[in-house]
Amino acid sequence: MSLKSLREEVLKANIQLVDNGLVVLTWGNASGIDRKRGLVVIKPSGVSYADLRPEQLVVVDLDGKVVEGSLRPSSDMKTHIALYRTWPEIGGVVHTHSTYATAFAQACLPIPCYGTTHADFCPGDIPCVRALTAAEVDEDYEANTGKAIIDGFASLSPKESPGAVVSHHGPFAWGRNAVDAANNAIILENIALMALHTRALHPNIDPIPEYILRKHHLRKHGPNAYYGQK
Amino acid sequence: MSLKSLREEVLKANIQLVDNGLVVLTWGNASGIDRKRGLVVIKPSGVSYADLRPEQLVVVDLDGKVVEGSLRPSSDMKTHIALYRTWPEIGGVVHTHSTYATAFAQACLPIPCYGTTHADFCPGDIPCVRALTAAEVDEDYEANTGKAIIDGFASLSPKESPGAVVSHHGPFAWGRNAVDAANNAIILENIALMALHTRALHPNIDPIPEYILRKHHLRKHGPNAYYGQK
Amino acid sequence: MSLKSLREEVLKANIQLVDNGLVVLTWGNASGIDRKRGLVVIKPSGVSYADLRPEQLVVVDLDGKVVEGSLRPSSDMKTHIALYRTWPEIGGVVHTHSTYATAFAQACLPIPCYGTTHADFCPGDIPCVRALTAAEVDEDYEANTGKAIIDGFASLSPKESPGAVVSHHGPFAWGRNAVDAANNAIILENIALMALHTRALHPNIDPIPEYILRKHHLRKHGPNAYYGQK
Amino acid sequence: MSLKSLREEVLKANIQLVDNGLVVLTWGNASGIDRKRGLVVIKPSGVSYADLRPEQLVVVDLDGKVVEGSLRPSSDMKTHIALYRTWPEIGGVVHTHSTYATAFAQACLPIPCYGTTHADFCPGDIPCVRALTAAEVDEDYEANTGKAIIDGFASLSPKESPGAVVSHHGPFAWGRNAVDAANNAIILENIALMALHTRALHPNIDPIPEYILRKHHLRKHGPNAYYGQK
Repeated sequence: MSLKSLREEVLKANIQLVDNGLVVLTWGNASGIDRKRGLVVIKPSGVSYADLRPEQLVVVDLDGKVVEGSLRPSSDMKTHIALYRTWPEIGGVVHTHSTYATAFAQACLPIPCYGTTHADFCPGDIPCVRALTAAEVDEDYEANTGKAIIDGFASLSPKESPGAVVSHHGPFAWGRNAVDAANNAIILENIALMALHTRALHPNIDPIPEYILRKHHLRKHGPNAYYGQK
Repeated sequence: MSLKSLREEVLKANIQLVDNGLVVLTWGNASGIDRKRGLVVIKPSGVSYADLRPEQLVVVDLDGKVVEGSLRPSSDMKTHIALYRTWPEIGGVVHTHSTYATAFAQACLPIPCYGTTHADFCPGDIPCVRALTAAEVDEDYEANTGKAIIDGFASLSPKESPGAVVSHHGPFAWGRNAVDAANNAIILENIALMALHTRALHPNIDPIPEYILRKHHLRKHGPNAYYGQK
Repeated sequence: MSLKSLREEVLKANIQLVDNGLVVLTWGNASGIDRKRGLVVIKPSGVSYADLRPEQLVVVDLDGKVVEGSLRPSSDMKTHIALYRTWPEIGGVVHTHSTYATAFAQACLPIPCYGTTHADFCPGDIPCVRALTAAEVDEDYEANTGKAIIDGFASLSPKESPGAVVSHHGPFAWGRNAVDAANNAIILENIALMALHTRALHPNIDPIPEYILRKHHLRKHGPNAYYGQK
Repeated sequence: MSLKSLREEVLKANIQLVDNGLVVLTWGNASGIDRKRGLVVIKPSGVSYADLRPEQLVVVDLDGKVVEGSLRPSSDMKTHIALYRTWPEIGGVVHTHSTYATAFAQACLPIPCYGTTHADFCPGDIPCVRALTAAEVDEDYEANTGKAIIDGFASLSPKESPGAVVSHHGPFAWGRNAVDAANNAIILENIALMALHTRALHPNIDPIPEYILRKHHLRKHGPNAYYGQK
């Protein structure tokens, strides 16, 4: 894929966030990586989505150095890079402050798997990643946000939960590419919304039984998956 | 009705789900049956609604065998077929993960009849159908989801409640045809939303008195109904 | 005003309900009265708003007899007429099943006046009108719904609260004409939404102090009102 | 900036409130000030946003006297003027009855800083300003609403919290100019929405740790800010 196509895909992912109501003003950013070239295309910081053009997206290398583009990259760029460096299997990252996922982040709670909608997405809780320490904030806030997420996935692969909420902060999602990551951010938000109302209706409800969870997840993601085409 | 008309009606029903906010991404499917031919037209699995064309819909027989179409049918196809086989009076089936009906499903709670909006739709609780056993999931998940719904209606006709929520899963609705089923899915979602807020305002509120419920239901659905035209 | 203009105004009021999200499917109706002729123009029953044309609206007299139009009037027509007959000061009536006002109706609770948004609309609680008795339902359900509303306003003028919620049912609103009644239905719904969240945040919060309530109401509706133009 | 440009900017700010769902009917007003001329451009009272044209906006001086325009200024004009007179650093003021900020106002509660979304906006609680006394309401309601806000900021600069909620009433926001104030009103509403759900999920959750709050606020607003472009 050319860098031009990657720019277009990353733009599409950013617009998808807006179209699905995940972004207020400029609160969100999507990026995609070209693994061969080792280059990441990311939204510029604080630029309105309405005016965003592919050539305004910023290209950075895996050290966070701007390689192409006259605008500053998203202030969360180092978090994106930390995830790309640690997880070779991902091709896109999205960060938003979407309402309901952020409510779980602010409440410092994981999102329990209450049903098949969630099980289709990931086979268990969506982790709530620990808050950064004062030293981590001081040293390198954005890079250490990436570190906190990675720490939270010590015993979990990024494919097992294509997203997480960071305590006191908000959701991050990832995927095969930028558009897939944006889809996962949309799913994460909608699962959070449903979970919130499920708890309000029945505060002590159990999570989905393990055997239903596994079935639903595998019919979509397992070796013999039969959801979707192919 | 020709199979071509049925395709168009089923497409319309699917689009209606999107237009009324019941569907996120590809989470939903509507089908309709041609009783004479014994053929069901259903949404293909995991295909985006934006691009859906009538000829992409899949035609299956009542054994679930694909008769027309090059795409895979919805992964929930066997649930639809189980309902069509057991209930000759229905002509359309809809499954969604709409937010509020799914919240009740995930909380494993029926939707009590709190008011006339609900009574117009069905004369009592909207049943919450039991979860499948591990053996049922193992054996044939989708067909047994249909079985669980049918079991839940042992003493209830599908006309008495044109929908149900399945524990840990989400809502199913049905009707005279695909568009009617989609309408019922829309109503189910809105009743769930109202019920949720009613409980939040007054956790111990009683359901609507039986005599009001019956009056409202009969003015719309009884032998001397006077709601609507004719 | 000609009957033709009244038809257009009533159509506009009906469309306003849809545009403001107060109506799902066909759940709502607006009417307006020509006091000189003693004729009421009202939405036909169960007809989709998308297709509604002025000539489809039904004209009835104050006994509920259809004077013009080939369609059935709204099934709630007798409630509208009961209000017009008792309250000569009103010129329009609206009934909806809007989500949040209906939640209060289903919880059988009045909407307390928690703030200036509500005080601008009416100087006190929005009444929750009693449920009908079994005998009243039996005898004449829709006319007696009007009677229950009127009973609830024994010590209150219809100008003091341009709306009410009926227990187990939903909201009614009224105004100088059909468009004004639709505006009041929109306000009622939004006040209900705010009240619901106010209670969730602070279950024991007091209503707005009387002296602020009165000031806000009078600056909009009193003899020396200075809100708006004129 | 010419008065003509200011009119256009104030109109844009008013429209932004509608486009972001902060305004029902005519419940809201934005203004901007020309500090050199000492003139304020403000929305006319009770005029529909759909029809609003730049020349309908009203120009008043800092005593509230209408200098240009044939319509009455917003009934909240004196509150705007009180803020402009006391805070030379602000260039725009917005008042709305947006749903969630108003719910906090009606519950008489400040909006605690639960996360980084809020910290980006202001480094601490969004104040809930005291209710007016009966004497203050009697004497000059709108001017004294401004006074109550200013009293609430005795130990806080208007830049530290670009908004507040007034007890039993609703939110006010301000900024460098009218459009910036409208942006702040949008942020305030969204922060309120997130805070409300955060509390519902976890009623005793602590606010964001001070060191994260400070970091986030400073990366956007501090002397070495690196959010946005330049």
